Amino acid sequence: MDGNAALAALCARWRDIWLLTTTSALLGWDEETMMPAAAADHRGEQLALLAGLQHERLLDDRLAALCEDAGEAGPEALAQVRAVRRAIDRARRLPRALVEEQKRVHAAAQRAWVEARERHTFSVFAPHLTRVVELKRAEARCLSVDGAASWAALLDEYEPGVDARALCATLDALRTELAPLVQRAAGRASSARLRGTFPRERQQVLIDGVARMLGFDMRRGRIDVTTHPFCSTAGTHDVRVAIRYHDQDVREALTSIAHEVGHALYEQGVPAALQGTPAGEPSSLGLHESQSRLWENQVLRGLPFWRHLLPWVARLFPEALEGARLDEVFVAINAVEPGPIRVGADEATYNLHICLRIELEQALISGALAVRELPDAWHEAYHRTLGLVPKDDREGVLQDGHWSAGMFGYFPTYTLGNLYAAQLFEAARAALPGLDDEMAAGRFEALLGWLRVHVHAHASLRSATEIVTAATGEAPGTRAFLAHLRTRLAETGQG
Amino acid sequence: MDGNAALAALCARWRDIWLLTTTSALLGWDEETMMPAAAADHRGEQLALLAGLQHERLLDDRLAALCEDAGEAGPEALAQVRAVRRAIDRARRLPRALVEEQKRVHAAAQRAWVEARERHTFSVFAPHLTRVVELKRAEARCLSVDGAASWAALLDEYEPGVDARALCATLDALRTELAPLVQRAAGRASSARLRGTFPRERQQVLIDGVARMLGFDMRRGRIDVTTHPFCSTAGTHDVRVAIRYHDQDVREALTSIAHEVGHALYEQGVPAALQGTPAGEPSSLGLHESQSRLWENQVLRGLPFWRHLLPWVARLFPEALEGARLDEVFVAINAVEPGPIRVGADEATYNLHICLRIELEQALISGALAVRELPDAWHEAYHRTLGLVPKDDREGVLQDGHWSAGMFGYFPTYTLGNLYAAQLFEAARAALPGLDDEMAAGRFEALLGWLRVHVHAHASLRSATEIVTAATGEAPGTRAFLAHLRTRLAETGQG
Repeated sequence: MDGNAALAALCARWRDIWLLTTTSALLGWDEETMMPAAAADHRGEQLALLAGLQHERLLDDRLAALCEDAGEAGPEALAQVRAVRRAIDRARRLPRALVEEQKRVHAAAQRAWVEARERHTFSVFAPHLTRVVELKRAEARCLSVDGAASWAALLDEYEPGVDARALCATLDALRTELAPLVQRAAGRASSARLRGTFPRERQQVLIDGVARMLGFDMRRGRIDVTTHPFCSTAGTHDVRVAIRYHDQDVREALTSIAHEVGHALYEQGVPAALQGTPAGEPSSLGLHESQSRLWENQVLRGLPFWRHLLPWVARLFPEALEGARLDEVFVAINAVEPGPIRVGADEATYNLHICLRIELEQALISGALAVRELPDAWHEAYHRTLGLVPKDDREGVLQDGHWSAGMFGYFPTYTLGNLYAAQLFEAARAALPGLDDEMAAGRFEALLGWLRVHVHAHASLRSATEIVTAATGEAPGTRAFLAHLRTRLAETGQG
Repeated sequence: MDGNAALAALCARWRDIWLLTTTSALLGWDEETMMPAAAADHRGEQLALLAGLQHERLLDDRLAALCEDAGEAGPEALAQVRAVRRAIDRARRLPRALVEEQKRVHAAAQRAWVEARERHTFSVFAPHLTRVVELKRAEARCLSVDGAASWAALLDEYEPGVDARALCATLDALRTELAPLVQRAAGRASSARLRGTFPRERQQVLIDGVARMLGFDMRRGRIDVTTHPFCSTAGTHDVRVAIRYHDQDVREALTSIAHEVGHALYEQGVPAALQGTPAGEPSSLGLHESQSRLWENQVLRGLPFWRHLLPWVARLFPEALEGARLDEVFVAINAVEPGPIRVGADEATYNLHICLRIELEQALISGALAVRELPDAWHEAYHRTLGLVPKDDREGVLQDGHWSAGMFGYFPTYTLGNLYAAQLFEAARAALPGLDDEMAAGRFEALLGWLRVHVHAHASLRSATEIVTAATGEAPGTRAFLAHLRTRLAETGQG
C-alpha cells in the first residue's frame, strides 16, 4: 500500500481506539466528580469492557500490517508508527488475563486502602498490597527484555526512553543537594499569613478568574470539585480540571488550580491536526508534569504574579488578608515546612519525598523488601532523610493511593516535571525579556505562546528529552532547578 | 445446549450490550448537563462508535443461536428471548448505512432547528426536516411487514405490540370528549397565584426535598439542571434526573421534578436480578410515561399533597406565597389555559396537542403532506381543534425537537402515559384506603410500594397492556382518565 494511504488507514483505526480512550476518560471524570457512590461496581464493568475493546483493536493484525507501509510517508509518519508500535508491543506482551486480574485487584485494593486510612492502620491494606505487588512483578517480567521483574520496565510505561539507571543517578545527586538545603531552611519561615477564613463562594470566583487569566479556555473545558485534584481529557475541545478547596487555607485551591490548569493548557495546546492521532498525546508524563509544575511553582509561587494577585485576593478576603504585605505572602507561599505528607509539600522538600518513594518501590518490585516490612522501612527512610517520623500509618505508608492503583514507576514523573519545569521556565524567561512585568500585570499570553511552540506543538512527535533539549539548548538535568530553588530560598530569607 | 446454560450465555452477551447502552446514556446525560459546547462533534463520534459496537454485537450469529436453546429454560426465559429477538430483528432490518446516515442527518437537523427557533422561521429548518422524513420513510419501509412506509412500524419501536389502528380510534374518541371540556373550562381559572418571585437557591431546597419525599434514592442517582428535562439511566444504581427552573413560576420546577422522579422511580424499581438482562428494561415508553405522569398529575397536582406542600412552600417563598389559600393554589396548578405550546399545557388540553401532532406526522410519513406544506397544515389543525393560531413558527412547528431527532411515532407515548396513569392511580387508590391521608402527610411509601409490585417488578417480562390490565382489572382505555379529569375540573370550578 502507498505510504500516505496506509498512514490514513492507520490513523482511522487509531481514531476508534482514541474515542474509546476519551470515553473511558469521561467515565473516570464522572466517577471522581459526579457519580453516585452506589454505582461504583457498574462503572468498573463499563471501564473493563472499554479496556477490553481497546485491547482487541490493538491486537488486530491489520493495525500492525499498516505500520509496515505507513512509515514510508515521511518523518512525521515514522513518529506516528512509533507510537502505534509501542502500544501494540505493550498489548501483546501483557496477557489479557493478567490485565483483567489487575483491574479487579486494584479496585479491591483501592477500597481496602480507603478503609485502612479511616482506621489509621496498615494491616487492613497489607494483604491487598501484597497481591498488587505480585501482579506488578508479573507485569514487569512480561514487559522487560530479559524477563526479570524490572522496575525500569514499569518506569518506561510513563517515561518512554528514559534510562532508569541515569535517572536514579540524577535522583541521588538531587537528594545530596536538597537534604542540607531543607535542613537549613526549615523553621525559618511560616505559611501562616495565607491561612484564615476563606468562604467557598469567593474562592470559586478567585479560581475561575485565575484559570481564565492563565489561559484556560472555558468553552473547551470545565472546572469541578473533587477529593484528589486531576485533569482529564474527555475529547477534542473537552479538557476538564477538578480541584479541591480548603476553607482555612487559600493555598490549596490556588496551587491546585494552577497545577491542573497547567496540565490542561498542554492538552488544549496539542495542534488540532494531531489530536486523536497516535502521536497526538503529550510526550511523557514527566513532560506533562513539567507544565503543571511550571504554572504552579514558577508562576503562582513567583513574586511577579503576586504583585497582580495580592490586591485582588486581599479585596476578596478582607477577613483574612486585609493589610497583608507582598513580602509576607511571598514568604508564606514558599515557606519550607518539612512534614510527613508529600502532597502540598514545599518545593524544596517535595523531591525528597519522591526519592524515598522510589527507593521503597524499587525494593518492593525487586523483592528485596516484603510488604509486611514496609511500615518499618518507611519510618526508617523518613527519619534518615527528613529527620522525622510519621505519627501513624495514615501519615506514612497510607498517605497516597498510587500503589493501591498499581502505579509503580510513576513517582519519578513528579521530579522529572520539577526539573523540566525549571529548565523550560528559565529558557522562556530568557526569550521573553518583559515576562516579569507581564506576569505582574496578570498577562500570560507570551509565556503560553512560548510553551505552545516549544512544548505543546510537538505532542509525541519527539521524546520529552528531545523537546526539553531543543527548547532550552541543554540536556535535561538538575542545574536549572537547583538554581531556581536557591534563588527562591534566598529571596524569601530561607537560603 | 442446556436451556439454563444457554440463558446464562445469552444474558452474559447481553450484558456487554447493556454496558454500551449505559455508557451511551452517561455520554448523553453529560452532553445535556455538563459538556463544554465545543465538544459536541467529538461527542457525536463517541456515540456513533458505541452505536456501531452494539449493532455488531446484535448481528453476531452466536447471539441468535443462543436464543434457540435459551427459551427452553421456562417462561421467564421466553420473555428474555423475546426481548433479544426483537432487538436482533430490528438490527437486521436496518442497514447500518441508513442508521449512520440518520445519525448525521439528525445531528445537522438538530442544529438547524435551534437556529430556526432563534430566527423564528421555518425555512432554515425545512430542507433538513425534508431529509429526516425521507430517511424515516426508508426506515419505516425496512421495518414494516409489507414494505410500505408505515407509521405503525415506527410506533412499534416505542410501544411494542400496540395496534396502531386501535390506538388511533382511541385518540379520536379522546379528542371528541376533550374538545368540549377544554372549551367549557377555558378562561374560568388562572395559574397566576403560583407565579411571582422564587429565588433559585430556595427552589433547589424545595426540589431536593420533594424528590426525597416521593422516594427518589439520592445514593443511587442525582439531580441536575438542563434545558429540556429528562431522566437517564447511566448504570445499575445510577439514575439521573435533570430539570429546569423558572424564576417567576414555581410550577416549572415542581412539575418537572415530579415528572422526572416518576421516570426515575420506575428505573430504580426494576428488580436487581433483572437489571442488565434483555427483559430488564421498562416495558414500553407509554408505561414509562405513565409513571412520570402519575407523580406529576395525580400526585403533585392533587389536593391531598398540597395540604402538605403549601405550608412548606409558603414558608420558603413568603414574597410570593404568604397567605396563599389551599383552594387558590389547587386551582392555580390545575388551571385550564389552552395555548399553542404543548410542554407545560394543562392536563385537559395536553392530549389535544398530541392528537394534532400524530395527525400531522402520520401525513408526513404516508407522503400525504409535504414538509413545505407543514406550517399551513399546523395552523389549520390548531385553529380547527383549539381555536387558536400560533403567532409564529417558534410557537408552532418549531416548538419541539422530536422530529429533528427523528422521533416519529413517539408522541402517542405521552397520551398512553396519561391514560395508563389515571387507570393505575385509580386502582392504587382503591387498594390503599388511607392514601389521601398519607399524601397529605407527605408519605408515599405505600403508593410507591404498590407501583413496585404491580408495575416496576415486571420490567419487560410482560407487555404494557398486560401489566396495566393485571394491575387494574381492566384493559387500557380512556374511562379512568376522563373520570379523573372531570372530577378535577369540577373540584376546581372548571367543570
